[in-house]
Amino acid sequence: MNELKTRETIEIIADGTVTTPRGFTAGGIHVGVRDDWSKLDVGLLVSEQLCTAAATYTRNKLMAAPLLITQKHLANGTARAVVANSGCANAATGDQGVTNAMTMASAAGAALGISPDDVVVASTGVIGTQLPMDRVEPGIGRVALTQQGGIDFAVSIMTTDTVPKYMAVRHGDWTIGAVCKGVGMIHPNMATMLCFMTTDANVNGTFLQDALRQAVDVSFNMVDIDSDTSTNDMALVLANGMAGGSEIDAAHPDAEPFQRSLTLLCTAMARKMVHDAEGGTKLIEATVTGAASPGDARLAARAIVSSIGVKTAVYGQDPNWGRPLAAVGNSGAAFDLAKSRLSLVHPNGTEVTLFAAGSPLDYDYSAARTSLAPQDVFLRVDLGLGDGEATAWGSDLTEEFVRLNSVYTT
Amino acid sequence: MNELKTRETIEIIADGTVTTPRGFTAGGIHVGVRDDWSKLDVGLLVSEQLCTAAATYTRNKLMAAPLLITQKHLANGTARAVVANSGCANAATGDQGVTNAMTMASAAGAALGISPDDVVVASTGVIGTQLPMDRVEPGIGRVALTQQGGIDFAVSIMTTDTVPKYMAVRHGDWTIGAVCKGVGMIHPNMATMLCFMTTDANVNGTFLQDALRQAVDVSFNMVDIDSDTSTNDMALVLANGMAGGSEIDAAHPDAEPFQRSLTLLCTAMARKMVHDAEGGTKLIEATVTGAASPGDARLAARAIVSSIGVKTAVYGQDPNWGRPLAAVGNSGAAFDLAKSRLSLVHPNGTEVTLFAAGSPLDYDYSAARTSLAPQDVFLRVDLGLGDGEATAWGSDLTEEFVRLNSVYTT
Repeated sequence: MNELKTRETIEIIADGTVTTPRGFTAGGIHVGVRDDWSKLDVGLLVSEQLCTAAATYTRNKLMAAPLLITQKHLANGTARAVVANSGCANAATGDQGVTNAMTMASAAGAALGISPDDVVVASTGVIGTQLPMDRVEPGIGRVALTQQGGIDFAVSIMTTDTVPKYMAVRHGDWTIGAVCKGVGMIHPNMATMLCFMTTDANVNGTFLQDALRQAVDVSFNMVDIDSDTSTNDMALVLANGMAGGSEIDAAHPDAEPFQRSLTLLCTAMARKMVHDAEGGTKLIEATVTGAASPGDARLAARAIVSSIGVKTAVYGQDPNWGRPLAAVGNSGAAFDLAKSRLSLVHPNGTEVTLFAAGSPLDYDYSAARTSLAPQDVFLRVDLGLGDGEATAWGSDLTEEFVRLNSVYTT
Repeated sequence: MNELKTRETIEIIADGTVTTPRGFTAGGIHVGVRDDWSKLDVGLLVSEQLCTAAATYTRNKLMAAPLLITQKHLANGTARAVVANSGCANAATGDQGVTNAMTMASAAGAALGISPDDVVVASTGVIGTQLPMDRVEPGIGRVALTQQGGIDFAVSIMTTDTVPKYMAVRHGDWTIGAVCKGVGMIHPNMATMLCFMTTDANVNGTFLQDALRQAVDVSFNMVDIDSDTSTNDMALVLANGMAGGSEIDAAHPDAEPFQRSLTLLCTAMARKMVHDAEGGTKLIEATVTGAASPGDARLAARAIVSSIGVKTAVYGQDPNWGRPLAAVGNSGAAFDLAKSRLSLVHPNGTEVTLFAAGSPLDYDYSAARTSLAPQDVFLRVDLGLGDGEATAWGSDLTEEFVRLNSVYTT
């Protein structure tokens, strides 16, 4: 009952963004990192007040220069601004790259009259090339910051994304806003997942970091587009406390709705990224229940949405039960075919069970095909071994994906 | 010098097969597991004398019925025959499937006048359907066994393979022959890797199992086609000792050439499978050196050939250095970009280094493209951290692969 009540009190603001919470302004500008003159390529986001900050970073050991600087600037747990660019990832750029990332922070600090140490730096785009600092550095100072600027900021970090991605959620007095970009890689780029969130809630730093970690673990970390992790991935949340109220920590009554709101927002952003996956036509949502442990459920769910066999079968609307089950069998999760059950769920609620108790069923083939027709495809696997549950999301694999990822540009 | 001499004394018999060693006969027949009447679908392989036997099996927890029976029959370390079929994997078939696998062994035992316990059973093809035992059981007794039958046996286990795969190697008095089938999965099948090897060498059982494990670890276990492991994978070696000589164990002078011969044969078979990968146009060979450990080298090499980004870039002949390095960064292997080096090697020996000491080099783009043109593409990564080395093989990823794996059959 309590849970239901909480769910009801979280309001989704579909056109909300990082400037929806109190005290945040943002903007974007074209400085010429990218050739396309019409595309914003540098963005700035700032809070009126110093924020509690939390972040998670790529697990790829090849970590880009801006992330190294950001880690340093967030070591004290606070920040006030984000400076970001698209078109160049500033990754694999050596010492010059680190210097350039520091210069971006300094330029933002100078423009905003704040310490460079309070500036988060992020880059996304081509790796192995240096930023055109002669354009980036003066450009940062020319960004017009407004309360409507969250969407321009979202546009400024887009690379191969076809739409800007943003949303906000509200609970009681506080709001959390988000922008993100994905998704899929394209020559000569490795696409980056960037997600920036802002809130006017008054949040304790330790709790904020824990909450972000939990939210990212069940959202961005459960997404598979092309099984590669970028050098530049980052999720950040800035909390400026301007909504007032007592500090939210793990014992606070708002701890649960805050965690739920953050998770909801990250999950929605993750789904937006998958929907916009390059060369993808469908979102595959795999939910695993009955796993021996939560970790096993995560392994199994991720294995399903990462399987090339599953991705191609879903693209072809082929109810091939062997592929998701083989993916689970390979995942490392405890697995007993005789206890496993696989079904497809149509968004209208119709469920077709393809496999149960060790054998394929004589299912309705036409209904199974129909459940694979929508843009969102739902696979359910119950492993019959325990209480572990997890959900993962992936894109399908198409000829267009191969074409986009194999053509070279001169 | 000793190594060089050994290498020179291993003779490759390109048209050799499992009936090349003394005392082995084989054959194949069409019984109607598959609809195509012209395709052999049941095969039999037998030794005049009882053999020392060693096997490795799929690591997929979904293990097919014939493998369960084979494990039981090989528990005593000996066998005399193999009965195999294509067209039906006898996987996910419950108790009936286990009964059918036992019946295949019994029918082979009856036909050959040997104990069913000395018969290895293997199946490959569609999963989730029962074998047509009314055709399979009598068919087994009708297989004509000849000393030239090794190729028919190789044909009888083909599924989506386009060519039968076989080879033999000889050293001194003994010979090892092999047949295998792959490769890639296609609806509604999950393709299986089967490799059967025979030798007339007199080999100690424990040494044979160790030698097979070592050979498989650096060959079949380093292959990636579609990142899925079949339910039916098996590699088997039968040694009947008919070449005479003292028993080869780890301390025997022939231990080293035997290990080398087995590894050479398994590697050649693995490469044949990749060359025949469905929808693939190229073999990608990734060699990692300088890893912190041999395990790290394996992780890194496998990650490169499994990466969708690498597979599509190689297909497009795109010298995209970011993708293999990002794959290594994600592999779990210790990695320091500043110490890493990546090059492409043309089969003619020309090497183009794309990346070294933390930065992309100003390489000859045309030469790099040229090195990606041949059917066999060689990537070399040195991690600069230690002595760990490994090689892995994978296929590229093409629009045709997606088409083959997404179309459904009615």
